[in-house]
Amino acid sequence: MKVNSDLQNERRGAGINSEEFAVFWNDGADNLREKRWRENYFLRDGYEKKFTVPDSYLSHKELYERAVDRMVHRFQKYRELKGTKRYPETDFYDSVRLLDQSGVTSAWSPFTTHLSMFVTTIMGQGTPEQQKKWLDRAANCNIVGTYAQTELGHGTFVRGLETTAEYDPQTKEFVLNTPTLNAFKFWPGGMGLTANYAAVIAQLYTQGKCHGVQSFIVQLRDEETHMPLPGITVGEIGPKLGMNEVNQGFLGMKNVRIPRENMLMRNAQVLEDGTFVKAPVSVLTYGTMVYVRVLIVQDISNSLAKAATIATRYSAVRRQSPIDPNDKEPQILDHVTQQNKIFPLIAKSVIFKMSGKVLLDMYQVVLRDIDEQKFDGLADLHALSCCLKAITSQETSTGIEVCRLACGGHGYLQCSGFPGLYGVVTAAATYEGEHVILLLQTARYLMKAVRNPDMSPTVAYLKRYPDSRTLGRWDGSAQGIAEAFEAIAAAKTHTAFNSLSRRLREGRKPGQASNESSIELVAAADAHCRAFILRAGQESMERVTGTVSPALAAVLKDLLELYAVDAAQKSLGDLLRFTTISQAEVERLQVRLEGVLSRLRPNAVALVDGFDFPDEVLRSALGAFDGNVYEHIYEDAMKSPLNQEPVNASFHKYLKPFMKSNRAKL
Amino acid sequence: MKVNSDLQNERRGAGINSEEFAVFWNDGADNLREKRWRENYFLRDGYEKKFTVPDSYLSHKELYERAVDRMVHRFQKYRELKGTKRYPETDFYDSVRLLDQSGVTSAWSPFTTHLSMFVTTIMGQGTPEQQKKWLDRAANCNIVGTYAQTELGHGTFVRGLETTAEYDPQTKEFVLNTPTLNAFKFWPGGMGLTANYAAVIAQLYTQGKCHGVQSFIVQLRDEETHMPLPGITVGEIGPKLGMNEVNQGFLGMKNVRIPRENMLMRNAQVLEDGTFVKAPVSVLTYGTMVYVRVLIVQDISNSLAKAATIATRYSAVRRQSPIDPNDKEPQILDHVTQQNKIFPLIAKSVIFKMSGKVLLDMYQVVLRDIDEQKFDGLADLHALSCCLKAITSQETSTGIEVCRLACGGHGYLQCSGFPGLYGVVTAAATYEGEHVILLLQTARYLMKAVRNPDMSPTVAYLKRYPDSRTLGRWDGSAQGIAEAFEAIAAAKTHTAFNSLSRRLREGRKPGQASNESSIELVAAADAHCRAFILRAGQESMERVTGTVSPALAAVLKDLLELYAVDAAQKSLGDLLRFTTISQAEVERLQVRLEGVLSRLRPNAVALVDGFDFPDEVLRSALGAFDGNVYEHIYEDAMKSPLNQEPVNASFHKYLKPFMKSNRAKL
Repeated sequence: MKVNSDLQNERRGAGINSEEFAVFWNDGADNLREKRWRENYFLRDGYEKKFTVPDSYLSHKELYERAVDRMVHRFQKYRELKGTKRYPETDFYDSVRLLDQSGVTSAWSPFTTHLSMFVTTIMGQGTPEQQKKWLDRAANCNIVGTYAQTELGHGTFVRGLETTAEYDPQTKEFVLNTPTLNAFKFWPGGMGLTANYAAVIAQLYTQGKCHGVQSFIVQLRDEETHMPLPGITVGEIGPKLGMNEVNQGFLGMKNVRIPRENMLMRNAQVLEDGTFVKAPVSVLTYGTMVYVRVLIVQDISNSLAKAATIATRYSAVRRQSPIDPNDKEPQILDHVTQQNKIFPLIAKSVIFKMSGKVLLDMYQVVLRDIDEQKFDGLADLHALSCCLKAITSQETSTGIEVCRLACGGHGYLQCSGFPGLYGVVTAAATYEGEHVILLLQTARYLMKAVRNPDMSPTVAYLKRYPDSRTLGRWDGSAQGIAEAFEAIAAAKTHTAFNSLSRRLREGRKPGQASNESSIELVAAADAHCRAFILRAGQESMERVTGTVSPALAAVLKDLLELYAVDAAQKSLGDLLRFTTISQAEVERLQVRLEGVLSRLRPNAVALVDGFDFPDEVLRSALGAFDGNVYEHIYEDAMKSPLNQEPVNASFHKYLKPFMKSNRAKL
Repeated sequence: MKVNSDLQNERRGAGINSEEFAVFWNDGADNLREKRWRENYFLRDGYEKKFTVPDSYLSHKELYERAVDRMVHRFQKYRELKGTKRYPETDFYDSVRLLDQSGVTSAWSPFTTHLSMFVTTIMGQGTPEQQKKWLDRAANCNIVGTYAQTELGHGTFVRGLETTAEYDPQTKEFVLNTPTLNAFKFWPGGMGLTANYAAVIAQLYTQGKCHGVQSFIVQLRDEETHMPLPGITVGEIGPKLGMNEVNQGFLGMKNVRIPRENMLMRNAQVLEDGTFVKAPVSVLTYGTMVYVRVLIVQDISNSLAKAATIATRYSAVRRQSPIDPNDKEPQILDHVTQQNKIFPLIAKSVIFKMSGKVLLDMYQVVLRDIDEQKFDGLADLHALSCCLKAITSQETSTGIEVCRLACGGHGYLQCSGFPGLYGVVTAAATYEGEHVILLLQTARYLMKAVRNPDMSPTVAYLKRYPDSRTLGRWDGSAQGIAEAFEAIAAAKTHTAFNSLSRRLREGRKPGQASNESSIELVAAADAHCRAFILRAGQESMERVTGTVSPALAAVLKDLLELYAVDAAQKSLGDLLRFTTISQAEVERLQVRLEGVLSRLRPNAVALVDGFDFPDEVLRSALGAFDGNVYEHIYEDAMKSPLNQEPVNASFHKYLKPFMKSNRAKL
């Protein structure tokens, strides 16, 4: 099909080269080339043609079966990369990212937990012998595992898990049990029908004492028949808001015996006689949790960019409502309210990506330090990874819905791509740490930082604002707004600290005092995070703009300006309380907002083109590169199984008898 | 099953009688009794038992077929009420509400558009002869219709519709055509496979001239065979984010001829020779649009109350994370952050309901006035109905997601009820007027009110704040906060007015000036709406608290306090700019928030019990009255078709060959 003429005009009229932006967005020309190679290799081999009906029409069961078909095919292709430079031999997180970022597992898959959690748990917690026994088979997918931690009754509070593993020195086995319904493992990805092994987290009992949670490799299903083994009750947990391909499952165990060697013993150990040997304090496990959050932050900006791409292209094609009664209907992207919905989210995608990258750099420094037995950066990194994961996943979820609603009724169609995208992203607000729980972790760090603001550069602003009454000096530049957000973060941190201290002085126990102050603690962590994002974005942008063409540099600066002004407007109350901003300066923000929206207008399509999502990844009738929106919507509808026959059977069975019977049988 | 003991304790310990709250919430004991009768009659007749697999497991096609089965059954029961006082003979909106509010069509149905739009269009726009011809058959469901206005390429801007109806005086027929793909009717409920008639909105052409859009009754399908008639292309539009039972459809027409009498001619007419007779200006059509929005506002508070019910009950049952390390795990409802997520939404449900009722009362006054040819209240009502529909649907959508996320992973399950509820409610943010479009309608009214604040009591506050510099006097009472929100609304209205005036002075055309000022116009309408809601809520609450027991009155006052304090905290920037609030008073809001949350804690479960949603309406494993949360989740999962066989066929077909093949075939 020909490219829609409005989109053609947008592309012709843009002031930036979208290829240059694509190179920037993908961290360099090499990465971009590799990404395109992968997308082509995995997604453009014609395999999808066998699926004539789109996924969204399928039943829950059909969708699972298709997911297995599709993923086996793609993982087979992935396996075929072995021995090439494109196959990451050791870093399995990199595998997951590679597959996920290429859109290969964009809605996740029954194998995701196997690679990202099962394999890595064995790597992180298994002894060399244990790794030898399982790692190769697992990496080859000769066995498929899952990671079984969460239970029906316990998620956040890991120490509360109820599954037990009791050591029997007679047989040198652990006996695993699920004592109550609440203790059923629930949510592990791929556990429903795919996995035949699991890393099970259970309370270890030996010599009559509980030693807290440990990890155990449990075989769930026979390797030949796939039948559940004796004592194992396993199944899938049913449909969810999204990610239904993941095949999340439940697991109950009744006197399931596993050899002693199946407890992962790199850290803690149980000796043959049942003696428990404590683990040395491990920063590595801690490090893994941090790393997963760093990755989530990295990847989430991609999801927001996808949503912005769909909404921008659709808004360039859709024409509606003349601006003046006698004009012709404009592209809805010319309505300023529409720009104000979408453009701040383009800016947010870019700033989130940049601050995620700063976080990743910090992680790599901390990792190097740990190798040299220096652990001081870890607490700071942990605190940042918590709040960044919480805030970016929340803002991205909200942003996707803003984009969907900006596309009106058609955004509500599954074929718009928004519902699927939202389902995946909003899950990230819950898994790997719930929003408030994570912010409270960050707040705990901030409460320490109040007493010792020298502990890290990321909290050094507390020295400039040593109490909640020192006002930030307002200066409208992006740098000045970043400074203002640090003043806000400092004030909120001091406020929370003061509330907490007062309650402790009044005699509350620490937990009770924290609980009563928790709204303010969360607010402090939230503000700390927003200050970090803006500062990281602003500093990165300054570095970057010197390395690109003047045209792109100007647009990037505008994106920073938009992000900063939008953030400032949304935090007016805080600015007025904690900085010197004046009424006139508040009003000036509105003028700047309107100015930057209008400057970005001509480059909006070129920017989202530069996010470089091929149609196979975007999977949106509204966001297709060719802009033939209505044709794609209609095509998708015509694939409906309900449209394959002119009259549905329910007409004869239910409808006609009802419509023909003239009266009630009262 | 026994009721969960935590819930039992909550109910025993409550300070209010939830039955008294239920009477209040349902507008009196009679209404409550009727509602319960209906729920019992429609939903507890055992018919649902035949559906052994929950809806969420079905394919798109299966779900439609079940929806027809279910709805024919319920509408048959509805029809059987004819001749009793329970059957609303004339007011079909009442029918729809009756069915919807009872949960009978809670996820909407293939018949909803028939009753709410097709039948009412004939009533409103048909001549007495036309009503005689179609109304009885339609009301009996002997024919099932739909309302076909929206096209693939046009929604908001009705004048831009492209479907044509050209009068042929030779045969005295209209010839209907769909000139382009963009002109395909798209979205009408029930049109896909259910309806055999439609009220089609098309551009009328006669005597070589276009006379704008008119309504035409078009038969789509044969009444005996249900086959599409010649020239008709009809089908369904595929899966959506929600409301998949509605069977929304598309329609293309090619030279479809209908008799002249099929144009609805109560207003405009086409005479036999083709002469067009203009309609007298009709306030009635206008009135219908207003009424639909009034109903949406009325009903939406119910959806928010449902979400709050699920989240509150789950939070009373779920135990997690000790507050002090050595304590046992508390109900998560004892975590203050959890209270701060859910309780403001309980308050919001109640305040939205009350302000919706004030709007309904206004509507009834306006209706009476219209009968006496007094039209002055109509513009005001229109403006209010626009912004209230926009704001309440947006806040309710957001609120449902807050509740879902407050339930952690389990909230993500379809069986939590949240995804279905969200799908229905978020649609209300788009249909019957998109959010921004509606707010701009309200803003247009406010721009007139600036020059004439005497035009209605709802804008009289503009007299007290004649410019954006007159500060509202801060007084922390609920009444004072309402006053403060009026000061904010006035300031924002003046600001938008000034921007608009400036741009006009600078020579912009009116539409262009409006577009450039649209962000501020939307902000003004938003503020106007929030001021109205709080004022209406506060005044209603004052009236109500005198009529209930002191215990309930105290709790209702706390709900108002919570709503007002929460709203104030979320508008701090506006309060600091446009009222005299001091720093100390801002800080005091936090103390009040923490106080009211803790006062409401003991009555939270009793309150949501009083919303009186039976399990058949709530349809939530997390929100069931008995609180056996984990049992219900597990039961639901066990119904999965994937759990009916121990090994899925995909293992043998795809998984095993892949897992057993040891190496890539490089």
